[in-house]
Amino acid sequence: MAGHRETVAPRRMAHLDRAEALRLLGSVSLGRIVFTQQALPAIRPVNHLMDGEDIIVRLHDGATLASVVAPADTRGVVVAYEADVIDARTHLGWSVVVTGYARRVTDAAELARFSNRLRPWADAPLGDAALRIRPDLVTGLRLTE
Amino acid sequence: MAGHRETVAPRRMAHLDRAEALRLLGSVSLGRIVFTQQALPAIRPVNHLMDGEDIIVRLHDGATLASVVAPADTRGVVVAYEADVIDARTHLGWSVVVTGYARRVTDAAELARFSNRLRPWADAPLGDAALRIRPDLVTGLRLTE
Repeated sequence: MAGHRETVAPRRMAHLDRAEALRLLGSVSLGRIVFTQQALPAIRPVNHLMDGEDIIVRLHDGATLASVVAPADTRGVVVAYEADVIDARTHLGWSVVVTGYARRVTDAAELARFSNRLRPWADAPLGDAALRIRPDLVTGLRLTE
Repeated sequence: MAGHRETVAPRRMAHLDRAEALRLLGSVSLGRIVFTQQALPAIRPVNHLMDGEDIIVRLHDGATLASVVAPADTRGVVVAYEADVIDARTHLGWSVVVTGYARRVTDAAELARFSNRLRPWADAPLGDAALRIRPDLVTGLRLTE
């Protein structure tokens, strides 16, 4: 743990506004989707892209996806989505958390458009395994020296 | 998105056994705690250390902690804890997810021991804001070329 104990300058934590938080989210392509699976909290790393303010994620695990949201569930289920860039040594960086309804992407044209841009974290056919998350609550923090 | 579309070699996904997953978790000091807050999925980046197989995390947000687990709740609440090291460009790397009961660390000697080794993600007094997560379910994936 020695590497984590060096003295650091005082740090400043800033809350990010919605626009800046979503901009940062769009600057990376990996995040983590948070959901409830059999009444337990669950989390998976996934690949994402932005479609306007919506977050499109691709799940590499069909069984997980099915537990998140059924295709026929047009309202969707509430999930959280997190992405961050935090330095492993200094712990400076940012974290953004979006909470909102996730629904399956079922439109064939949309799926085709996203599949060209979304690489799954693990190899898998895209199929219909894409979700659209509409950001309802957006929070973000940035930690600087 | 051009940077995310380069052709990559076929990738291999390996499931990690419990010992390897916990070893990898102990090789980093940042992760994300996943919990339920007012019936919604929630996630926060936090700092952690290993105490045997247990994960000790420090929350920088007292209100969040209170919603995770009350001091008097000796059984604790089920949370998930995730850490990963995934290359932003190639997406190769590993992810570990632990699910288990989280309880407050209330013993003064333990708190003193952990506070010397745990730096919060943001500046905050440790106080009693530490949780011990006993890993019940441990899963891990490693993605290699």
